[in-house]
Amino acid sequence: MRELTVDLGERSYPIYIGQGILNNIAGLFERHKLSRKSPLLVITDDEVAPLHLERVMTRLQEGGFAASACVVPAGEPTKSLAQLEGIVTAALEAGLDRSSAIVALGGGVVGDLAGFAAASFMRGIRFVQIPTTILAHDSSVGGKVAVNHPMAKNIIGAFHQPELVLFDIDTLLTLPPRQVKAGLSEVIKHGLIWDADFTQWCDDNADKLLALDPEALSYALYTGCKVKAIVVSQDERENDLRAILNLGHTIGHALEAVAGYGELLHGEAIAIGMVGAAKLAQQFGYADSIHTITKNLFIKYGLPVSIPAHLDTDSIMSAMMYDKKFKEGMMVYIIPTEIGKVEIRKDVTVDQVRGIVEHLKKEG
Amino acid sequence: MRELTVDLGERSYPIYIGQGILNNIAGLFERHKLSRKSPLLVITDDEVAPLHLERVMTRLQEGGFAASACVVPAGEPTKSLAQLEGIVTAALEAGLDRSSAIVALGGGVVGDLAGFAAASFMRGIRFVQIPTTILAHDSSVGGKVAVNHPMAKNIIGAFHQPELVLFDIDTLLTLPPRQVKAGLSEVIKHGLIWDADFTQWCDDNADKLLALDPEALSYALYTGCKVKAIVVSQDERENDLRAILNLGHTIGHALEAVAGYGELLHGEAIAIGMVGAAKLAQQFGYADSIHTITKNLFIKYGLPVSIPAHLDTDSIMSAMMYDKKFKEGMMVYIIPTEIGKVEIRKDVTVDQVRGIVEHLKKEG
Ligand SMILES: NC(=O)c1ccc[n+]([C@@H]2O[C@H](COP(=O)([O-])OP(=O)(O)OC[C@H]3O[C@@H](n4cnc5c(N)ncnc54)[C@H](O)[C@@H]3O)[C@@H](O)[C@H]2O)c1
Ligand SMILES: NC(=O)c1ccc[n+]([C@@H]2O[C@H](COP(=O)([O-])OP(=O)(O)OC[C@H]3O[C@@H](n4cnc5c(N)ncnc54)[C@H](O)[C@@H]3O)[C@@H](O)[C@H]2O)c1
Ligand SMILES: [Zn+2]
Ligand SMILES: [Zn+2]
Repeated sequence: MRELTVDLGERSYPIYIGQGILNNIAGLFERHKLSRKSPLLVITDDEVAPLHLERVMTRLQEGGFAASACVVPAGEPTKSLAQLEGIVTAALEAGLDRSSAIVALGGGVVGDLAGFAAASFMRGIRFVQIPTTILAHDSSVGGKVAVNHPMAKNIIGAFHQPELVLFDIDTLLTLPPRQVKAGLSEVIKHGLIWDADFTQWCDDNADKLLALDPEALSYALYTGCKVKAIVVSQDERENDLRAILNLGHTIGHALEAVAGYGELLHGEAIAIGMVGAAKLAQQFGYADSIHTITKNLFIKYGLPVSIPAHLDTDSIMSAMMYDKKFKEGMMVYIIPTEIGKVEIRKDVTVDQVRGIVEHLKKEG
Repeated sequence: MRELTVDLGERSYPIYIGQGILNNIAGLFERHKLSRKSPLLVITDDEVAPLHLERVMTRLQEGGFAASACVVPAGEPTKSLAQLEGIVTAALEAGLDRSSAIVALGGGVVGDLAGFAAASFMRGIRFVQIPTTILAHDSSVGGKVAVNHPMAKNIIGAFHQPELVLFDIDTLLTLPPRQVKAGLSEVIKHGLIWDADFTQWCDDNADKLLALDPEALSYALYTGCKVKAIVVSQDERENDLRAILNLGHTIGHALEAVAGYGELLHGEAIAIGMVGAAKLAQQFGYADSIHTITKNLFIKYGLPVSIPAHLDTDSIMSAMMYDKKFKEGMMVYIIPTEIGKVEIRKDVTVDQVRGIVEHLKKEG
């Protein structure tokens, strides 16, 4: 079992990563002072529930915790105010009080929704992240929680740090292959922004990761979480440094919005976005090899590196306007300066970004 | 113009109270560093809008601020997730960014809703309270913001302090008399929990306050806000001391819920609740005069002191179970120990509370 800490003063918390962790969930809850007197509410979705819910509920009950479950539909549309209301109904029916905790068992959708429920129920109660997707190594760390609005993703939310993160990699064995690849996209991102050695390691170990080899997976998730934890510790509320985590996300979010959520998974969309950022780096005089390495890495992982031709350039550009606004024709943009390093540029023009989008529609 | 500060370290903020303050709204926004570059969104309700919105918008625009308005229906049902979604739509359409602020122009309903919108839009932007009811001297100070769930009031919310509070008592001149009285109920509460001299002053100046005499009103709101500010400064997140602000609210909230919001105004319901708490004080050996003084004071202000006979005792009791839970038959209860002082008791039994409810149905 690997362990690391997100260092945020009195809001610090541990991340546990390894096989079989959920068998000891009650012991870990006890160690981190979750209350047996106040009911817990476990939130999960209807794809994860049949696979992993029973074990969690049984272990909690055996360990003396009173837990109810609330199952939401799987998928991005579940990150809504309507589902938030449903969770609050369940919380009231289960008798949650100010010492209770909400437990998110699932991917980023469940984590973001349940986390926002925990942030706002009774003006904030504790919560625990139990990520069950690879992508959620990213979403479960850092305390950003949110639901979507029909016009904008993640626009209604809070910063609300969990009490602990339990990453049992056994749960990942049931993930569909497409979700595995998409999740690895964010793992690779953590290398690209912070750690050239780890990027090389990802290049060398693609086969193992794609085959869900436990030791490789555990190391990769540990390293990805570590990068995220370091960045978040230095800038909890995204005033500056934390923006680097958005490598590939400017174009990525726009693609998700225009494709309609579902056609492109988040991890797929940002893979394309990261190739775009590497292409943009060339225009600022950085090495051509950044683009080649990035693109080949994503190809190796079976991730897309170009924009599906039917997506309209104008629509992509206007989705970007809503998301991260251009100020006077300029945009804040995260650009790699070498493998393992990025910079936050404020001088990227609309025309440059449009050029990249058009390039990505041709070849990536 | 009176001024005071809510002392919360880096989250400290000023409250301005007086006549004509809104004429200088742009100057005050500038002094407190609200941005002219980022659009503001003013939230108000459809009863306040025809009376006071135009002046606010004009003064802001004259002062160089870009402001849009969003008008919600007046009344408690507006404190909902559905209205929150509407405000976020308006915020996106108006192009709000992370440096924008939301401005609440109205009573406690608008303040609580707009405040929660500000707490959660983009995970938290700044906001300004412009209370236009007497009751809102209470709700606009302290940073508690929330919307309701069909099963429970204020259950979805946040602690989110405003940047400043502008209390222009000219706006109060348009208040219906019933709202004036109900608002004064919370002013009196601040005397009862903290300041015996101010309670006496309220007794001596009932006529002036009910006639909205500007000097009396300004002094009373200043003193009420001061008590609230002192308490909140010592316990921002209601871990202990802040609970004293709930004098009268245990029974009051239950009455509001059972009567159906609207039949009893919040201020009316808690007046009855404060009489009940004073009655309970007798059972713990405190002076009978607390009850007599409290009851006569509310009668002087034309506020109800007994429970409408048609409200069912069992329903009132079970509404209380949802709100502040009884733990093993006991309840946390705020009891006056003398005029101007209260204690937080944890040994009040269900039976005692039921006895008080039955007493209040007979005579108050
Ligand atoms: N809060 C943050 O910092 C942050 C960061 C990145 C992404 N996100 C959010 O995360 C979301 C994407 O997360 P995601 O990719 O985990 O999506 P997801 O939660 O929708 O999970 C993907 C799919 O896999 C299923 N699934 C989950 N665990 C499984 C398992 N163990 N076995 C089989 N199926 C399983 C789910 O039911 C779902 O259908 C987006 O909403 C994104 O905005 C948030
Ligand atoms: N956040 C807190 O700490 C806190 C504290 C106390 C109460 N509250 C909340 O405050 C709400 C009650 O506040 P309220 O009593 O101000 O109710 P309100 O906001 O509903 O206002 C009462 C009525 O007066 C109208 N009105 C407002 N200003 C007016 C004016 N100047 N002239 C004419 N009409 C005017 C409104 O349109 C409304 O119809 C409740 O929801 C309660 O939960 C919150
Ligand atoms: Zn991402
Ligand atoms: Zn009140």
